[in-house]
Amino acid sequence: MTNGGCTVWLTGLPSSGKTTIAEHLRRRLEADGRAVELLDGDEIRKYFSAGVGFSREDRTLHLQRVAHLCALLTKHGVAVIASFVSPYRENRDYVRRLIGERFLEVYVDTSLEECIRRDVKGLYKKAIAGEVRQFTGISDPYEPPFNPEVVVKTLDEPADAAAQRILETMDGRRLVSE
Amino acid sequence: MTNGGCTVWLTGLPSSGKTTIAEHLRRRLEADGRAVELLDGDEIRKYFSAGVGFSREDRTLHLQRVAHLCALLTKHGVAVIASFVSPYRENRDYVRRLIGERFLEVYVDTSLEECIRRDVKGLYKKAIAGEVRQFTGISDPYEPPFNPEVVVKTLDEPADAAAQRILETMDGRRLVSE
Repeated sequence: MTNGGCTVWLTGLPSSGKTTIAEHLRRRLEADGRAVELLDGDEIRKYFSAGVGFSREDRTLHLQRVAHLCALLTKHGVAVIASFVSPYRENRDYVRRLIGERFLEVYVDTSLEECIRRDVKGLYKKAIAGEVRQFTGISDPYEPPFNPEVVVKTLDEPADAAAQRILETMDGRRLVSE
Repeated sequence: MTNGGCTVWLTGLPSSGKTTIAEHLRRRLEADGRAVELLDGDEIRKYFSAGVGFSREDRTLHLQRVAHLCALLTKHGVAVIASFVSPYRENRDYVRRLIGERFLEVYVDTSLEECIRRDVKGLYKKAIAGEVRQFTGISDPYEPPFNPEVVVKTLDEPADAAAQRILETMDGRRLVSE
């Protein structure tokens, strides 16, 4: 029943470029005829964690749900692309333990300065002004992965090249079938 | 990508026999080589709604999460068997709307007297004694479906025959492929 299912977990600061890489990866996998599901932070919160906040406990609660969702889809052969700030190591390690060998962690490593410059959703501005609380990078910590399978430096590598490199890593670990 | 995915939703009072029918149906679908996922009330609560209670609002919140989980799995070709008391019509109709033609509602219609007699988990006894609150059938309402695809009277039909009949209904609606 398990036929190429996996979870590619993108972690990084807000505006680091996770979504762009995720979209490129999605398109490539779909072009190969793979079953793909892109789970993006905000959307998934709406469906699975409405009212859950951004304290360490709340983030943990939310990401544990996401972890079980990823595990179910992975079990049934879906290539899951999970794009979440997921600032705490223990939360990401929870997903890794749950999914095992079919889990791949991608650290989207963009400097805080660059993320503030991009500020895709205008939230850094609000966080710096104190209008948004518990904002990762400004008023909340981010713990970089110790040993991610892939590191993307978005200032040095275009998103499509990063997606290609992730795909090669998946391939090398036999996570891409068909 | 969609290849026979569907959601078979079993609703009925606690101890009505949902789990037994669900297990029979699972075994038959697995024997046919189908990708199957059985989502059972208690287990799913633990993963997706820890701390969520049994008020109308809380049940609604929980079942909306379950609905989106079913929709994602259905989309990727999984035959989902969802076994939930799900006492409110509006909650079940939410899943139906979300999943559309690939949704099939099975009403496990066992009389309250018989459910109390079976009392699989000993919860009716506690509910009648006032030790468990908001218990469907005793201190909380159950709204039977108006127009379910399948009705099972468990006193008149063994669980394996009911599973067979559900399978035939799925087949008739072309929800079983391969």
